[in-house]
Amino acid sequence: MTYAVIMAGGVGTRFWPRSRTSKPKQLLNIFGDRSMIQQTVDRIMPFLDAAHILVVTNAVQAEAIREQLPQLPDKNILIEPIGRNTAPCVGLAASHIVARDPDAVMAVFAADHLISPAENFYHTLDAAVQIAKDTSGSITIGIQPTRPETGYGYIQFLESEFLEANNSRAYRVKAFAEKPNEATAQRFVESGDFLWNSGMFVWKASTILSLIGEHLPELSKGLEKIQSAIGKDDYTAVVGDVFTGLKGISIDYGVMEKTRDVYVLKSDFEWNDVGSWLEVHELSAKDENGNALVGSHVVFDSSNSFVFSPDQTIAMVGVNNLIVVNTGDALLICNRDRTQDVKQVVEILKREKKVDLL
Amino acid sequence: MTYAVIMAGGVGTRFWPRSRTSKPKQLLNIFGDRSMIQQTVDRIMPFLDAAHILVVTNAVQAEAIREQLPQLPDKNILIEPIGRNTAPCVGLAASHIVARDPDAVMAVFAADHLISPAENFYHTLDAAVQIAKDTSGSITIGIQPTRPETGYGYIQFLESEFLEANNSRAYRVKAFAEKPNEATAQRFVESGDFLWNSGMFVWKASTILSLIGEHLPELSKGLEKIQSAIGKDDYTAVVGDVFTGLKGISIDYGVMEKTRDVYVLKSDFEWNDVGSWLEVHELSAKDENGNALVGSHVVFDSSNSFVFSPDQTIAMVGVNNLIVVNTGDALLICNRDRTQDVKQVVEILKREKKVDLL
Repeated sequence: MTYAVIMAGGVGTRFWPRSRTSKPKQLLNIFGDRSMIQQTVDRIMPFLDAAHILVVTNAVQAEAIREQLPQLPDKNILIEPIGRNTAPCVGLAASHIVARDPDAVMAVFAADHLISPAENFYHTLDAAVQIAKDTSGSITIGIQPTRPETGYGYIQFLESEFLEANNSRAYRVKAFAEKPNEATAQRFVESGDFLWNSGMFVWKASTILSLIGEHLPELSKGLEKIQSAIGKDDYTAVVGDVFTGLKGISIDYGVMEKTRDVYVLKSDFEWNDVGSWLEVHELSAKDENGNALVGSHVVFDSSNSFVFSPDQTIAMVGVNNLIVVNTGDALLICNRDRTQDVKQVVEILKREKKVDLL
Repeated sequence: MTYAVIMAGGVGTRFWPRSRTSKPKQLLNIFGDRSMIQQTVDRIMPFLDAAHILVVTNAVQAEAIREQLPQLPDKNILIEPIGRNTAPCVGLAASHIVARDPDAVMAVFAADHLISPAENFYHTLDAAVQIAKDTSGSITIGIQPTRPETGYGYIQFLESEFLEANNSRAYRVKAFAEKPNEATAQRFVESGDFLWNSGMFVWKASTILSLIGEHLPELSKGLEKIQSAIGKDDYTAVVGDVFTGLKGISIDYGVMEKTRDVYVLKSDFEWNDVGSWLEVHELSAKDENGNALVGSHVVFDSSNSFVFSPDQTIAMVGVNNLIVVNTGDALLICNRDRTQDVKQVVEILKREKKVDLL
């Protein structure tokens, strides 16, 4: 069988004041009336039933996730006692999946990305699962770049070596590239053999566990302890012990970059990781002045702005390029070109110990 | 005796969302913890006792004014049934004052101007009262211009003709000039014989009533009816009838510009009519980045802005030249150079019948 794993441990400081420690981006309904994680599950459900969808999250968010995803069995919500980046997260999920089905394929997704249309997503996912099943290779989903984005990682592939399934091609990965500077990003996009790294992976659970065994032996030992404890009384204590002792490392850096049999499947869906309020504005429907406005408002001679203020009337006079987010207890007014710095506000609030705003 | 008359009928739409129909600028504590009208009365009290301070206002504001100024006798709060600009307002006050003392001098002030230091104000006022008493002339208070302001009226004076009292000179007025354009304002300021028209006047009550009789005979007839009704049961009905039938006209345009014996007393105090949020920002204490911030806030790389948000934390990221005013039910975000257009917001709210925000 195939399992989906949704990684939902993010803290989402860039979406303050809507995102809070207990309610990060994936739990917010930033687009439409379903949260990002609900939309992620909705997208997978036609492909896999709820019993085969796992969510990995932390203790603070677990309750809200259970409420937002009542269709998932309780045992499918896995809790990391402490965040250690994606390698331990993937390893934890793989450990549970092999316990249920030693031959299972697992597909890993972020909880807070936008993907459409769904048909193209199914098509890509189907091909990746088929290849993972047939070859025991590692498949990553690559996105055709549409701009020289410096906020994403890139994957370089070899056009001459590929696997095929379902009319899709998975090219052998030549290199993973970290977030580039602008000139490098430009070069990547022009070269034609770089794709965006979406962070979506497909493997057999047994494949990724043996790759972890090869490249991250300490994590592997920890996961073996966890596997032995699954279903036992001391499970939570064991996971706590193991995670506390782990170093944080990403699955890309810790495993994928060191593995030869990695293929990148060129997807044909629209994808956005919605990394900041700027992207929310760009993805929103806008009026003729470029304004996207949620809530009661009066706009006079103002343009290119995003306003979220469901409970309070906002009037704008002669302003442009603003992101305004009003949650009642806090209000953000941010230059549209400075949305990456919203996390600085969260840092300041932390320093000032304004816990109720975090 | 001398009476002070405070004209407090303004609607103050430019201070939305703090100013509302029932609470315009003069009732707000924009600076410090006393409202503008309280500060106006506080400024006059060392000069005149409460029994000699009259406020002219409208029915909507009367209750709030009585609450803010408990020291004033109830009969000193005069109510205009409908606003008809300053000539009827002054005439109404003068009618009450002559009824109490036919020889009284009256000094007319706006309820919402900033003046300091108080000592210089007393000195100017004292001189003006003395001249009005001795000469039966009309005295206006002129302000030495400090910039080519296009938002004020100007008064041109004759340097060669003046009256003197208390070491101050009141020059004969040559002309009243409406709000000029920028080039004209520049010329006025450079000429040296133009002063700002502060809107403060000092006359004998009998003098202004006879000037009204000369230049505004219809108003004069109405005021005679009101004078006959003072202290009688039908007073309110008579005032209502008279005001309803009047045309709106300013005391400057309707009387002063047509009168020969008008003198302008050059004051030596700082004066500001606080016409918009821009001026509030300019008059506020600012930090090293030019920010004036009232309420809890997080400011990251932002400058030259004014924030009033007593009950909600406001975070600013990478923004400049903003006026932000947050009253809980409404929030204004205005370009610092566009504060004159705040009244447009009020117009839009009126059109949209959003009564609770007006």
